[in-house]
Formats: sequence, C-alpha cells, structure tokens
Amino acid sequence: MTMTIKKSGNFGPDLAFSINAKVKAARAKFGKENVINAVLGTLADDEGNIIALDSVYNRLETMDRGLIASYAPIEGEKAFRETVLKILFADNKPDAYIEVVSTPGGTGAIRNGIFSYADIGDPVICHDYFWQPYKKMCIEFDRDFRTYNYLTKDFKFDLEAYKACQDEALKDHDRLVSIINSPGNNPTGYSLSDEEWDEVLEISKKAANKGKKISLIIDVAYIEFAGDGEQKRFFKKFSNLPENLMVLVAFSMSKAYTAYGLRSGAVIGISSSKEVIEDFKNAMATSARVNWSNGVHAPQLILVDLAKDENKGEYDKELLSLKAMLKERADVFIREAEAHKVEMIPYFGGFFAFIPTTKAFDIVENLEKENIFTIPSAKGIRIALCATNKRDIVKLVERIAFYMNK
Amino acid sequence: MTMTIKKSGNFGPDLAFSINAKVKAARAKFGKENVINAVLGTLADDEGNIIALDSVYNRLETMDRGLIASYAPIEGEKAFRETVLKILFADNKPDAYIEVVSTPGGTGAIRNGIFSYADIGDPVICHDYFWQPYKKMCIEFDRDFRTYNYLTKDFKFDLEAYKACQDEALKDHDRLVSIINSPGNNPTGYSLSDEEWDEVLEISKKAANKGKKISLIIDVAYIEFAGDGEQKRFFKKFSNLPENLMVLVAFSMSKAYTAYGLRSGAVIGISSSKEVIEDFKNAMATSARVNWSNGVHAPQLILVDLAKDENKGEYDKELLSLKAMLKERADVFIREAEAHKVEMIPYFGGFFAFIPTTKAFDIVENLEKENIFTIPSAKGIRIALCATNKRDIVKLVERIAFYMNK
Repeated sequence: MTMTIKKSGNFGPDLAFSINAKVKAARAKFGKENVINAVLGTLADDEGNIIALDSVYNRLETMDRGLIASYAPIEGEKAFRETVLKILFADNKPDAYIEVVSTPGGTGAIRNGIFSYADIGDPVICHDYFWQPYKKMCIEFDRDFRTYNYLTKDFKFDLEAYKACQDEALKDHDRLVSIINSPGNNPTGYSLSDEEWDEVLEISKKAANKGKKISLIIDVAYIEFAGDGEQKRFFKKFSNLPENLMVLVAFSMSKAYTAYGLRSGAVIGISSSKEVIEDFKNAMATSARVNWSNGVHAPQLILVDLAKDENKGEYDKELLSLKAMLKERADVFIREAEAHKVEMIPYFGGFFAFIPTTKAFDIVENLEKENIFTIPSAKGIRIALCATNKRDIVKLVERIAFYMNK
Repeated sequence: MTMTIKKSGNFGPDLAFSINAKVKAARAKFGKENVINAVLGTLADDEGNIIALDSVYNRLETMDRGLIASYAPIEGEKAFRETVLKILFADNKPDAYIEVVSTPGGTGAIRNGIFSYADIGDPVICHDYFWQPYKKMCIEFDRDFRTYNYLTKDFKFDLEAYKACQDEALKDHDRLVSIINSPGNNPTGYSLSDEEWDEVLEISKKAANKGKKISLIIDVAYIEFAGDGEQKRFFKKFSNLPENLMVLVAFSMSKAYTAYGLRSGAVIGISSSKEVIEDFKNAMATSARVNWSNGVHAPQLILVDLAKDENKGEYDKELLSLKAMLKERADVFIREAEAHKVEMIPYFGGFFAFIPTTKAFDIVENLEKENIFTIPSAKGIRIALCATNKRDIVKLVERIAFYMNK
C-alpha cells in the first residue's frame, strides 16, 4: 500500500544527482586527481573545485544581516526585477508589456510557466534532447509532454518537425506550451539561429491567428556563456506579437553568478496585451506564494548591487574569465573529437557538449569503470565541459572514441 | 483576454505582505518611532529592527564559499535531514519509519503534503482560523479546502466539529488531508493539549479503520516558541499508527533560526509502514525536483553545525533570549487585554496574539489612521507580538479597546 496519489512521483532518483553521488564516492576512494567528473552543471576550476565568484560572495559576507534574514517580497525586490530585465535583454528589450516575478532558480520559472499556461491534459511540446525535469514537471502536473525531432541530419533546428508537432498537438486542444532551451542548449550546446527564431515565431503566429493560445517558455539558463551579446538579439523579435502568443523567459542566477546553491531566478512575461501581462504577474505571484512563499533575499540584493555602474566592471571581469575558461575547454573538446572522428552536435555555448550515440549507456558504464563520469541518455552522452579541465577532456574523448569503435 | 488557465491565481496581493508595504511607507513618512508594526511574522528587537542571530550569520559569513555556491542534494544533505529529526523531536521521536526531505521553508513542506496526499477534488480540512496560504494552495491545486469550527466557546479545540467535518468529507471520498497548525497556532497562539491530540488521533483512527486514507499535516513553524520541551511530547503519539494513517510534519528554519529570507525547511514523514515511507520519500524528492530543484545549501549546513555538541550552547542561549523577549511581550499583552476587558484567544506561544471580533476590518482601518498596523480577518485581529515592543503593545491594546467599545 502507498498513501500518495497515483501520479505522485515514482521516477526513482534523479540521474545527474545519482551519478554525482558516484563521483563523490570514487573521489573519496581513488583521490580526486584520479577521477574525471564531467557530470554536474557547475563550473569547476582545473583542479575540479567549484568556482564561487568573489564579486558575489564578498557581497554575501558583508551584507547587512537583517537584510539576509528578512523575507523578500513575494514577487521579488522591485530593484531585482528591474535589474533582471536590464541584464537579460541588454539592448534587445522587446517592445511589449513585460513583468518579472522571482523564482527559485530557472526550475521555478519553468514550473510556473507549465503550471499556469497549460491545463491538465494540455500539450507541452519540446525538442527531443531536453533537460529531464521538463518531462517530470509535466508528469507531476498531468500535462501532456510531447517531443519532436530537435535537429536535422545536418544539425539544424528541425522546423518541419516542430511545426508538425505543434499542429498535431493543437488538433484537439486550444492551447499549447512550447519549451525551448536555447542558447547553449542543455544537453547539446546547440543554439537556435536568428533565422530559426523567425521561423519558430512564424509557426507560432499561424496557430495564434487561428485563435489558439500559444505560450513559449524560453529557458536561457546558459545565455551568458553562449555568445558575446549577439545571442540576445532574438529577444527583440518578441515585440508586437499577437495577444494570444505569450513568451515566458526563465532566468537563472545559478550559472552566470555561480549561485547554484542560493536558488535564485525569475520568470519574465512578455506580451503585447496589458491584461495578459497583469494576469501573468498575479498568476506567478500566487504560484510563488503557494509553492515556496518568496525567493531567497540575499542573491536578489547581490544581483542589484553587481549591476550598479560602479560595480559592473568587477563582475564583468569575472564572468569574462569564466567564459574564456569554458571556451578553451570547448575548443579542446571539438579538436579532439575531430581528431578521433567522433561526431558531436555543433557547440554554440553553454556548459555541455554532446556526442550522439545509441550506445550511450554501455559506453558510460565502461567509462565509469575507468573513473570517468558522464551522463548517458537514449540519444547520446552529455559531457559537462564546465566541470572538466583540458587534460581530462583529451583523455575523456580518447576513451569515448575507444568504446564507440569497439 | 487572459492566457493563464482558469484556476491559476487571481487572489490579488497577499494581505500580510500588502499591509507590510503600508508599514514601510508609513515609517518612511512619519519615522520608525511613530509607527507600530504588528504585522509580519518576523522577530524584531524593541527598536523594531529584525533580529538575525549571531550564531547563524557568523557561520554564513565564514562558510566555505564553494559549499554555499554548490547544489544541495535534491532531498537535502544527509546530515541536515538527521539533524532536523534530532532537533524537532528531542526525546519524543515516534516509534515509526521516518524520512525527511528538505523544502523551501514550511511553505514547501505543506505544499508538498497537500499535493501528494490529496488528489484533485479531495478534501483538505483545517481549523477555521488558519494561515491563508493553506487555502490558496488548495485552490491552486484544485483540492477541496474545508474548515471546521476551531475553538469551543470556552476556547478548547472543538473536537466535535473536527469529527463532523472529517466524517462529512469522507462520505464521498476515500482519502483526506487534515492540516493542524499547532503548537503556537498562527494566527491565534493556541496549542492543542496532549489530551486533544489523543482525541484527534482517535478520530483519525476511526476513519482509517474503515479503510480511508488519512494524512495529517502538522505545521509546527512556531514550536520552539511554544513551550520548554513539553510542547513536543505529542510527537511520541505518532508511534504505531495504522498504515493508512500518515503523519507529515512541516519544519521551518525561518523562525527559530531567524532565517526567513534563506528559505529552508523540511517535510518529515511518519508511518508504521516501510513501503509508505519509501513512497513518501520518492514523492517528496520528485516534488522538490520539479518545483524548486533543491534546497538552499548554506542554511542546511548551518543547522548541522549549530546542533553539534560544541556549538549547541551558543545557539541555545540565543534562542532562550528570543523566547524570553517574546514571553515578556505576551505577558504584557495578556495583562493589558485583561485590564481593558478585551477578550483574547488563550495564548500558549508562537508569534501572534488574537482578538476575536467581527469588526476587525473596521477597527484595523481606524488603527491604521493612527499608524498602528495589524492583520484583520473575518474572525478578528492578529497582532504580531514578535515584531512589537512592550510599550507599543500597551498602546496598541488600549487603542483596540477604544475602537472595540466605540
């Protein structure tokens, strides 16, 4: 006998966090230097130690304790919400009504979007390489998670598959949520091009023009590591959309501020309708209140402080060094993959590289025997470039090539 | 037109946080010393400044930054989960299978309990003085929130009303969740006696023996401020219950560790069945993953450190001084209420005192004109003793008496 309701979670343990536990055990047994950890999406230095930015943690250490201790407003500090927009859009703020509500990381933002913009049984569509919690959210909330083929054979966004999936889903439904994780997609590292975004919006508008309610949730967790500004141009395209085509953006402080364990993010709503955006704000604030009450206060205040003119340089410098580190590792990965003739999905940015293979679970099992840890899926192997140094990447690609050709 | 699903939140702003915004405005306009703030449930010193315990925030400031930055495990640090049990139960650990999963404050714990132990349309019963988010959670998740008369005329827990509400709810349902906020109930300050707990369990067992699935969610947010140990004796009663009578306890670090803004708590499951408790752990971890991913890391580690033998004295001393401060204020409140012949609900502990009246909204409006801020409801006025000094309490009771007799 069990006491929970039937659909309540029996997925078993989360794969990434389970494998991470194996990494910890292996490190304890064999020594950190003998274990390659390409599992979890946290930035580590070349010695495998997690990076915590000085600009962020100096502020935490010196912040007024009363502020840290106190509740943040339910929707988040006003200055935080304004700062999120400034940072997120840079010069590409869409011409639209826009609201922001704080959430615990990107997870809370996506959860809120799915919960409020798809009803029970409604379709939630996503590319078929995806962050597993999207699907788990849909199972938990009884939404109908459907996937389409992500990439064509020549590794472009498969617009035909996208349209077919949308049309099929809308045959017997009046609303649809589409989750797109770009730029620097997890797990592939792929980013939609500006032209691909144009097409996605065209496809969405076609459905909206037929009276369907279409909500796009864009997960941009890796956006600061996926370009030097040009990766934000697509935001501008969310100007003047039909009022029944809504865009939600999931913003996270986890990666760009090395603040994973502080759980801070935001959901941003973009709409051409004032009514729609007010409803968005109410719905998001209510979901906050009933699920986690309010956000962690300190990281909201840190974000605001770091965005001030006099402090921006300090943070930007640290972010640049993280980006450079990640790029060097990605360059090595790409070079080695080519040398070993291992096919990979084009890497545009983000924390991960991806090797498509149907033998991922076998290969990963073999790698684990050599104390090399990665994440397998039906589609291939995810490698956390964020966590691995260049020397380990060379070895890791060599061993993957070995098992792929075996 | 709106884009969210119909039931998605249009409750308007949260009352406590809205009134708190008025407090801030009044303080800015009239000066802090001219505003009486008896609104929000955060402990303030006699000057109205939020209290942040040294033992907690010294540790935050000196904690390894990599630990703060890193993700906690989804279910929470193992040592945290063990420490929660030690602190929560003291010598009253029930003889049962017990599991713990971390949550963002008590809110996350209660939300998880309602979501996984009542299905859509299932009854969730609660005393009719209650923390508003309970009801909002049920609306959001489409659970059937029902209340029963909390207190008899002589201010005892109304067991007859409780039983009638349970029986009525179970007429056409096979499962029921019952939320009880005790000891030191918010908003009343009432605590169920050990004998009242015996009766509640008897009533629950009767339904369980008929094959109904009964889940009690006990919100103990204020437990450390509602006695000197004896208020935890009731936990022992959760030993050897029928396997279809489940107990969940919502633990929060917010109050006893002055860590409101750090969002840390836990949900504790208690069951006589190993299967039931394993299902509990899976369901709670899944809900964590899909709603907020994982808990804030730092407060989990702080809790563990503070519970160590060598540090316990340091924290206990601080907690004792908070309790003493709160008790002094409550004593003044009770004395003044008596002097002015203002009826109040018996205060056993917690952050709030409560004056029953049907004119609460009128009275509170008048009080606000004098820069005295409290929380009104249909049942009466909630006064945050945690936030108000003794001098202000004297004035506040006098003004309430004035408007009550007007």
